[in-house]
Amino acid sequence: MTPRAVVLLSGGMDSCVTLAHALRDGFDVAALHVNYGQRTQERELQAFTDVCDHYRVERRLVVDISHLAAIGGSSLTDRNINVDEARLDATEVPTSYVPFRNANILAIAASWAEVLAAEAIYIGAVEEDSSGYPDCRGVFFKAFEDVIHLGTNTGTNIRIVTPLISLSKREIVESGALFEAPLHLTWSCYRGSDIACGTCDSCALRLRGFHQAKVTDKIDYVVMPTYL
Amino acid sequence: MTPRAVVLLSGGMDSCVTLAHALRDGFDVAALHVNYGQRTQERELQAFTDVCDHYRVERRLVVDISHLAAIGGSSLTDRNINVDEARLDATEVPTSYVPFRNANILAIAASWAEVLAAEAIYIGAVEEDSSGYPDCRGVFFKAFEDVIHLGTNTGTNIRIVTPLISLSKREIVESGALFEAPLHLTWSCYRGSDIACGTCDSCALRLRGFHQAKVTDKIDYVVMPTYL
Repeated sequence: MTPRAVVLLSGGMDSCVTLAHALRDGFDVAALHVNYGQRTQERELQAFTDVCDHYRVERRLVVDISHLAAIGGSSLTDRNINVDEARLDATEVPTSYVPFRNANILAIAASWAEVLAAEAIYIGAVEEDSSGYPDCRGVFFKAFEDVIHLGTNTGTNIRIVTPLISLSKREIVESGALFEAPLHLTWSCYRGSDIACGTCDSCALRLRGFHQAKVTDKIDYVVMPTYL
Repeated sequence: MTPRAVVLLSGGMDSCVTLAHALRDGFDVAALHVNYGQRTQERELQAFTDVCDHYRVERRLVVDISHLAAIGGSSLTDRNINVDEARLDATEVPTSYVPFRNANILAIAASWAEVLAAEAIYIGAVEEDSSGYPDCRGVFFKAFEDVIHLGTNTGTNIRIVTPLISLSKREIVESGALFEAPLHLTWSCYRGSDIACGTCDSCALRLRGFHQAKVTDKIDYVVMPTYL
């Protein structure tokens, strides 16, 4: 039997490239998408569907954890906090941080992986380039892997695979281009709307990555950063 | 300021006694209840409300993670699998096991605890007497505490407190009686209905605990085990 993997697919560029890695690694992929009450939920779900269709991924699960919005504490889910303008030189954790989000997502992925007898969970986290989120670091994923090992049935052995963890956005774009990943189907903007804003953290990181990789980003933007 | 704790309150006996411990330890309690598509969801929510009212806990959060039902794999959420009759001598993991359930619940608790600046998460897990669930063991909670430490913002320091972890059901009943915890408001039956069945794993463990502690269980049962 082809080994199975659960791939976390947000609809963003990083998770699309991560899915390409899982397929290249020979896995039968089950794609998991999580809505957590973020502003751009509908657009990201569309991107998830488009990318799954592109790769003909049949096993899909969409989960709503919008209780994270009720808990609050992040500009992505709490409409009383504004989304920051991008500050790519910032060292503090930005307001777009959703408390402990990746643990919530990985817990769901691990439950599904156990039921599917999957061997791996792929997640497109990026340590160097992730705006300082504490739950995007390699040490966090290693610790979570231990928790999965301890908290699931004997015989379950699920690895957490983070193929992008040490890549820059430039290298992710290059990797996506090499694998012919459908980056034009992905969505990164934190602010929502039909056209990406071009000025939030996520847009700025994406645009800088394409710029540095000398690859054209085929999606439209409201405003292009002045350095481009 | 009084230190805060998030207490996981299922509506069962163990979580009620755990709440009593948290209050005795001097915490300002925030109570978290999680529905996960289990058969007895409505009855457990009523017990949660009754216990919170009894203790005048004002900060309450009810979260639905019924996607665990969609994922399946457990008799508590998958109606195609029957709830086993109690086999208190069994050594294998029973069919009522929900894959990685406690990790899903703890992830939510940790997100809320970070937002509330809480110092502790109380959970009424019982290692010796927990039907062999892998995510009820002390080593699992210790590993999850490490994950919380690594995955939350600098300055967040949340302990996972398991006051019942090494107690028997008899000792839990004794502890509840000592603290005058309102055990008559709690619900344990896995099968649901207005009257507890008396024969599922959870009923059997509860009844044996009361029996051994020589305390009267004031709730009604359809069938009482023959050993009582």
